[in-house]
Amino acid sequence: MTTSREWHLTRRPHGEPVDEDFALVDVELPEPGAGQVVVRNTFLSVDPYMRGRMNDVKSYVPPFELDKPMDGEAVGVVEAVGEDAVDATGAPISVGDTVIHPLGWRTRALLPAKHARVLDTDLAPAQAFLGVLGMPGLTAYAGLLRVAEFTEGDAVFVSAAAGAVGSLVGQIARLKGASRVVGSAGGPEKVQWLQDDAGFNAAVDYKAAPIRQGLAEAAPEGIDIYFDNVGGDHLEAAIGALRQNGRAALCGAISVYNNTEAAPGPRNMAMIIGKRLTLRGFIVSDHRDLRPQFEAEVGQWLAEGKIAWRETVVDGIENAVEGFRGLLTGGNTGKMLIRL
Amino acid sequence: MTTSREWHLTRRPHGEPVDEDFALVDVELPEPGAGQVVVRNTFLSVDPYMRGRMNDVKSYVPPFELDKPMDGEAVGVVEAVGEDAVDATGAPISVGDTVIHPLGWRTRALLPAKHARVLDTDLAPAQAFLGVLGMPGLTAYAGLLRVAEFTEGDAVFVSAAAGAVGSLVGQIARLKGASRVVGSAGGPEKVQWLQDDAGFNAAVDYKAAPIRQGLAEAAPEGIDIYFDNVGGDHLEAAIGALRQNGRAALCGAISVYNNTEAAPGPRNMAMIIGKRLTLRGFIVSDHRDLRPQFEAEVGQWLAEGKIAWRETVVDGIENAVEGFRGLLTGGNTGKMLIRL
Repeated sequence: MTTSREWHLTRRPHGEPVDEDFALVDVELPEPGAGQVVVRNTFLSVDPYMRGRMNDVKSYVPPFELDKPMDGEAVGVVEAVGEDAVDATGAPISVGDTVIHPLGWRTRALLPAKHARVLDTDLAPAQAFLGVLGMPGLTAYAGLLRVAEFTEGDAVFVSAAAGAVGSLVGQIARLKGASRVVGSAGGPEKVQWLQDDAGFNAAVDYKAAPIRQGLAEAAPEGIDIYFDNVGGDHLEAAIGALRQNGRAALCGAISVYNNTEAAPGPRNMAMIIGKRLTLRGFIVSDHRDLRPQFEAEVGQWLAEGKIAWRETVVDGIENAVEGFRGLLTGGNTGKMLIRL
Repeated sequence: MTTSREWHLTRRPHGEPVDEDFALVDVELPEPGAGQVVVRNTFLSVDPYMRGRMNDVKSYVPPFELDKPMDGEAVGVVEAVGEDAVDATGAPISVGDTVIHPLGWRTRALLPAKHARVLDTDLAPAQAFLGVLGMPGLTAYAGLLRVAEFTEGDAVFVSAAAGAVGSLVGQIARLKGASRVVGSAGGPEKVQWLQDDAGFNAAVDYKAAPIRQGLAEAAPEGIDIYFDNVGGDHLEAAIGALRQNGRAALCGAISVYNNTEAAPGPRNMAMIIGKRLTLRGFIVSDHRDLRPQFEAEVGQWLAEGKIAWRETVVDGIENAVEGFRGLLTGGNTGKMLIRL
């Protein structure tokens, strides 16, 4: 018998989530049965898509249930193993192994071993598999290369560029021969990091001036691809800047996730016609087939030191909600993590 | 020496075009030189895209020049032929031939013979080559089959469905095995025609109730394809109704062409992500390679009586501007034509 502290959603947030929407609950976990493991989580992932799961709206992932633990990706160390436990790849799983699994938002998880995957921590620290080598990384890779059909010489603009997904989008574009890579982020520190460390050609502080103006200055000859993590004004600005046959991969709309009323869309939708633009939404889980290729290519770049990646770490299970709220308001550079 | 009456744009319209923006001008035409012809126009085409050409905005077709004759497609009869005149296909061209050419908005045109094409009026009356067998028909064909990637079993929604393009979109979808074909149009007469004659499964009068509501009733299980001629509320309603992996071919935005201020876009753009939608703008001139296939297939259906098509005819060169204005406000069923 062991214990876990887990976050429950107790009320559906209206607008920005507040403390009263959540409760931190102590539970006891039984010993693992056959095929099960208990994992002591070391890092929890908080991701923008989780805001959508807090609403009672049918979407591509089901909403969180009220008064039940929330879930999400996590990495941790196996503490106890039931009989006949093998991981998602069929590999044996042992006490002390570092694994990734889908039961985050808690300190310890009891789960079927086949829902976990043993990680090779020689390649990168465990938490990298929640970010640059994980779901956010694959999102960047699939969205840029498959959904937006990047080809060498394209000029690329990405929003939320200092985030886990955006920072990789820009760097993959650079490494694949983009003619120009422009990112937007909030505040001078992020802009500095994008330009100095992540190798973006230009970065725009969207809080300093309207993004349309900033983008026009940063990409005066226009763009071929827009990778959208933000929606709203950013999407309108990008439609204005896209050149003929341009493509937008729509990945997220963090600017509207906390909205309580539907915000108007881009005022320049008619430009999509004359410029023959393509806007395409996507969900990373449809592109899992790219994972081996992604891990090989990005893993290689990481090993060669060609990719800059950052983490913003919030310590303690009791601060997980606060960390999540900070993510929605841009409090992170790179991957936002809760460290336990 | 002969004469022509031609419409000039004398001022760029602000909002809905008014009489003062145009002038009907009498000119004298010289005899045709080598390689030239004079055509007496019998039908002029007026099309929604011409409204965009009245603005001083760089787009996929250049704006009309002020105090010069406007242009657009027309059909007519060759009245005079210069030496060595051959048409666009290299065929000889003779007095009395019926041709299609790009110098509309006038009673007579002097032009290089190679800009004209001699028509086979046994296949269909000349003016059909301005509509069902012409640019609007090819627009419908390319937009539905190539841009929106129609496949058998798709449920299709088309706006401005009683227009030259929309009426063909729905009928091609029906003939190619759509699971459901829904159109929107303004007023009970158009709705009746779509249901009774054009074989739509359902037609929605967008003037009788909000289009979102009408579409939900007409396609309760949602749609796979939206062919957009309208923009605005229609596009928002369609994004709401599109099912997973749905596609929208954006062809026109007649609801905003007369706007003097940019109208807000769809408030549900974030749905594009979760539903993995694709919105793609297109211009028919990029798809001319489909013309032989289009003419063979649609020509066959016409010969077999499988396609209903209508014309709205306005008589007299002096009424051409009035006819064009009526087109923008939905005064037509089927192809809008000026008969001379």
